[in-house]
Amino acid sequence: MLGGTNLPRVGGYNQAVVLDAIRTRGPISRVELAALSGLTNQTVSNVVRKLLDAGLVTETGQAPSSGGKRRTLLAPRPDGAYALGVHLDPDAAVIVLVNLAGEVLTSRRLRLSVPSEPADVVDRVARAALRLAERSAVDPGRLLGLGIAAPGPIDGSSGAVVSPPNLPGWDRVPLLKMFAEATDMPVALDNDATAAAIGERWIGGEARAGSFLFIYLGTGIGAGIVLNNTVLHGDSGNAGEFGHLAVEPGDRVCHCGGTGCLGPYCSPAAIIDDLLRLHGRAAADRIGLTGDPASLHGDWKVLRRAARTGDEDACDVVRSAARRIGQAARGAVSLLDVSRVVLGGEGLRGIEPIVREEIDTAVNSTSVARAIRPIAIEQSVIGDTVGAVGAASLVLHGNYTPGWRMLTDPSG
Amino acid sequence: MLGGTNLPRVGGYNQAVVLDAIRTRGPISRVELAALSGLTNQTVSNVVRKLLDAGLVTETGQAPSSGGKRRTLLAPRPDGAYALGVHLDPDAAVIVLVNLAGEVLTSRRLRLSVPSEPADVVDRVARAALRLAERSAVDPGRLLGLGIAAPGPIDGSSGAVVSPPNLPGWDRVPLLKMFAEATDMPVALDNDATAAAIGERWIGGEARAGSFLFIYLGTGIGAGIVLNNTVLHGDSGNAGEFGHLAVEPGDRVCHCGGTGCLGPYCSPAAIIDDLLRLHGRAAADRIGLTGDPASLHGDWKVLRRAARTGDEDACDVVRSAARRIGQAARGAVSLLDVSRVVLGGEGLRGIEPIVREEIDTAVNSTSVARAIRPIAIEQSVIGDTVGAVGAASLVLHGNYTPGWRMLTDPSG
Repeated sequence: MLGGTNLPRVGGYNQAVVLDAIRTRGPISRVELAALSGLTNQTVSNVVRKLLDAGLVTETGQAPSSGGKRRTLLAPRPDGAYALGVHLDPDAAVIVLVNLAGEVLTSRRLRLSVPSEPADVVDRVARAALRLAERSAVDPGRLLGLGIAAPGPIDGSSGAVVSPPNLPGWDRVPLLKMFAEATDMPVALDNDATAAAIGERWIGGEARAGSFLFIYLGTGIGAGIVLNNTVLHGDSGNAGEFGHLAVEPGDRVCHCGGTGCLGPYCSPAAIIDDLLRLHGRAAADRIGLTGDPASLHGDWKVLRRAARTGDEDACDVVRSAARRIGQAARGAVSLLDVSRVVLGGEGLRGIEPIVREEIDTAVNSTSVARAIRPIAIEQSVIGDTVGAVGAASLVLHGNYTPGWRMLTDPSG
Repeated sequence: MLGGTNLPRVGGYNQAVVLDAIRTRGPISRVELAALSGLTNQTVSNVVRKLLDAGLVTETGQAPSSGGKRRTLLAPRPDGAYALGVHLDPDAAVIVLVNLAGEVLTSRRLRLSVPSEPADVVDRVARAALRLAERSAVDPGRLLGLGIAAPGPIDGSSGAVVSPPNLPGWDRVPLLKMFAEATDMPVALDNDATAAAIGERWIGGEARAGSFLFIYLGTGIGAGIVLNNTVLHGDSGNAGEFGHLAVEPGDRVCHCGGTGCLGPYCSPAAIIDDLLRLHGRAAADRIGLTGDPASLHGDWKVLRRAARTGDEDACDVVRSAARRIGQAARGAVSLLDVSRVVLGGEGLRGIEPIVREEIDTAVNSTSVARAIRPIAIEQSVIGDTVGAVGAASLVLHGNYTPGWRMLTDPSG
């Protein structure tokens, strides 16, 4: 059940509300903060004093006078806090160090061998992340922790990945605990799509206020869900398993055992396979595809480039996958009643216009929602590094985003 | 953005938390309430005093002594508040008067002609509802208002129904305003499936704590979504449009213009049509179906009864629709990561075992969720009147369920 709340909790919550407003709307005056938050001027002044003392915000000048006293403006201090983010993919780990503004200060990409041994990967990645932080000019006292975005499913309660189809052999690996031991830092873990959605929420400001569905294309497809400014984690920490929405079925069985799931039709491997099967070796040679499963990453890049430059066969298979993504998106948008869909992930680069167009058609020309208002289909504000930046945002978001948990969770 | 909160709001919120705990867990002692809510004993005592004064709870005896002082137990007072509920269906309106415990004190079913004129319907229904309240022994000062469950889509901001496919000719009818004028009472409106889910949340106590997907079968199919004890309304007030999830497509075009939507395969009219088309007039005659669209309600009852008693052809068409409901349910459960699915609505009576079995198979034998934990598939705790009781619960829930809105909505 929902718990009660009390004054200390309210204080922490209001502080988060004001910081969030300064982050997303600053430079902003105390008077505007009071109007936005519904708090009294006195409460806002007290909260701002605490945020100034904590080094999280700064006074940044004065607003032009509108007759009365000129108002001091407040802005976030990017150097107020830092977080490390790790995006784990089967063949690579991307590590970033970001500041409170979500800006990437430094980053590193580690190639991983496939299949990989979890303990080795954690060891290498943790050492690389610690080195990244050490070599930066960052105050260690302001480094809040390390976030990890991993392929799902995860076990939210134990912080483990649970046999992700994209990490063969990683069965119930307690990543949270392993990284905490390896780095001696607070660690947060979420699936890649949810981490990406949290990154958008953290960095996107007003453009990502309210509710949205984030569709993430990496090695597989997933989604992150933000409803009323709150991230949906789900009962087991796996909300947003977009790849198991039913779509027009073909002959493929999903790794979950079902037929008709979206997943098997829109992974890079599946789309490359479509090209070879439907358009033959000649088309693959013309485009420059090897068709070798070991070269999946490179082949996918080549196929995306071909689609971007208008190769008909490449466009055909990408569009066919995108059409099914659209079918699933229409269902998800109807179910959740969000008015915004955001697309992101490295796997989308180059084919984003096709995917966007198909989702737009499915969602805006055939959904009931159109009777009420059009659904915006937008690109990630973060871009290709949304996985890693999202991972780092897990830490910043967990510390600073106002939420229910701050008011009532007995363990918060 | 999220707003700040303050002491008066916290007081109202904590009062709702304690009432909710007494409602769902009572008889319960103050000490247990403190432990459950995380509030201090002193705060709980103050809040309970206010609830006693308001006539919403009562002292109901004492717990057996466990050595120390015996504890006074608190229980909800069913006569503490009342609400009227109206479930609007194309051919009938069901009106109920319920008390704070969600018990139906009295009810009435009004037959409506199809097509119907909105103003006439509102006039008849409002008068019948007021009469129902007058003839009951209910203290008018404790009658909180009238809730309406209507077929979606609705426009949540204006309180209007927006061309519901099941109410031909009802285009942007401002039901909220019309009923408020006709009854001079506070009025709440939601779509039927969401109202039903709110009814389950209100009445189901611990059995409906946390998160669940409520699948509602009436004249059409819909869903209500409860996440972390909070009802999802959606950006436009239409969350839970379950009928537009994609499933294995056939030859039917949805009223939304899409192909592959679940809706056209699982309405009573569609299933009756399936029987006639696939098994012929002979099967219909054996079962006792007229096949006349004007007798839809009666035909559906007949077909459900045949399925319940094991008629093979009836079971075949019901199972075929249920299989598609299962496909959609699997997707919705994966997306939302809820661990419970609840089934309800008058249209399900008799065929519930078949639908439940197909959803169970789809959700528990092929979803990724099974790797984490099984999904419970349960029947409504309210039963056939879940639409009307859900409508009345809109009012009780809106007044008394603890929620975010109580803490931060500037208009709350």
